Amino acid sequence: MVKIEQDERIDYLPKEKIKIIQSPNVFSFSMDAVFLAKFCYVPIQKGQIVDLCTGNGVIPLLLSERSKAQITGVEIQQRLFSMAVRSSLLNNLDEQLTFIHGDIKDAPTYLEKGKYDLITCNPPYFKTVTEKDLNENQHFAIARHEIYCGLDDVLRVCSALAKERGKVALVHRPDRLIDIITSMKEHHVEPKRIQLIHPKKNREANILLIEGIKNGKPGVKVLPPIFVYHEDDTYTEEFKDIYFS
Amino acid sequence: MVKIEQDERIDYLPKEKIKIIQSPNVFSFSMDAVFLAKFCYVPIQKGQIVDLCTGNGVIPLLLSERSKAQITGVEIQQRLFSMAVRSSLLNNLDEQLTFIHGDIKDAPTYLEKGKYDLITCNPPYFKTVTEKDLNENQHFAIARHEIYCGLDDVLRVCSALAKERGKVALVHRPDRLIDIITSMKEHHVEPKRIQLIHPKKNREANILLIEGIKNGKPGVKVLPPIFVYHEDDTYTEEFKDIYFS
Repeated sequence: MVKIEQDERIDYLPKEKIKIIQSPNVFSFSMDAVFLAKFCYVPIQKGQIVDLCTGNGVIPLLLSERSKAQITGVEIQQRLFSMAVRSSLLNNLDEQLTFIHGDIKDAPTYLEKGKYDLITCNPPYFKTVTEKDLNENQHFAIARHEIYCGLDDVLRVCSALAKERGKVALVHRPDRLIDIITSMKEHHVEPKRIQLIHPKKNREANILLIEGIKNGKPGVKVLPPIFVYHEDDTYTEEFKDIYFS
Repeated sequence: MVKIEQDERIDYLPKEKIKIIQSPNVFSFSMDAVFLAKFCYVPIQKGQIVDLCTGNGVIPLLLSERSKAQITGVEIQQRLFSMAVRSSLLNNLDEQLTFIHGDIKDAPTYLEKGKYDLITCNPPYFKTVTEKDLNENQHFAIARHEIYCGLDDVLRVCSALAKERGKVALVHRPDRLIDIITSMKEHHVEPKRIQLIHPKKNREANILLIEGIKNGKPGVKVLPPIFVYHEDDTYTEEFKDIYFS
């Protein structure tokens, strides 16, 4: 019997097969995480995956729908780590999914370096944090702002954990594209696939998906873009095909 | 009276107002050049623009439709330089447009450094050239392959010529995005706007437009993508709006 805390609820992932424990006061998964879990290449039958900044474990839960690989999620916030562990139990996925309560910056000390086929990460997006952000909701502040880890920490750790030719897949804001590419190159992760999500056809991109290969050859592809909404605010077919499949 | 050589012909730019001398054996302008000339920010009433690797002068001719600035085109091939000069005469644009027959790598010696509001370039796209490429058509080989200038030469010269906060706008292949960003950063040109052209909605991007600002602040925008063709191979409205306007 999995315990559900007072401010928590059980939601479903978009495909409506897997349950996930969330709390509107602490953490709820975003569309961004779903896009990343659908975008990245995964080893299908076997292999090892790490998800950094895993939050309530949404990406490992989603990846379990696509892969039989062992998936390890790392989360620094105790409360979110606990949700992730309980969600994996709730779905009988505790043999495939392992969660670690720890700082991703130290991950190369407690996880094996050069071992993993894929490292995913939906990191904090914002460079700076105000006192107000921190005071209003520390859980959100830590998940959204680069308080415990910056982009360069993320890429350093991704690169350290990836095996030779292993993949590193991130979701981020498009305005950080240049920082991400610079950091990937610095840590020998060659960007290979980029996809941009636009809220509507005539709007700037607001979500960036990027995948690199450790010590891969230069040359990147930009995949067809995804528009989320039609002009009349209904979902596009391409969005529904990806999001709910 | 402007002389037209035997293998040359007079075509029109897409808006069908400006004439351009071309030769199918030597050089004809591409869709890529038109996209770049529409994409870049231009000083409207006055200012100084340079177009590097100008070929038959297509970009300066197109920019003259958008700007009253003085525009200088630099081309290494005598035959293409001659076409550019004659096209400017043909359109009575020789007061606004100046062409220089020279190597762009030396441009900071014969053009004033730190002077220009905008530098555009549609450089050679391909890293390597074969003997066969060179033997078949040297004009095409020089325009398409990095024989006389590589990407890093282009960005070094763009940066040297641009004034503080001046703009640098390039068209290239998306697979070189990472090289371009790396080279821009190295030469203190901060990427600010990116737009991708896809032949069709569900196809990878095949043209990259990118604009940076010399010593600009970090933070890039990814504009709405452009699809050239509908599924039935007719032009999309967005393409026609840009290309023929």
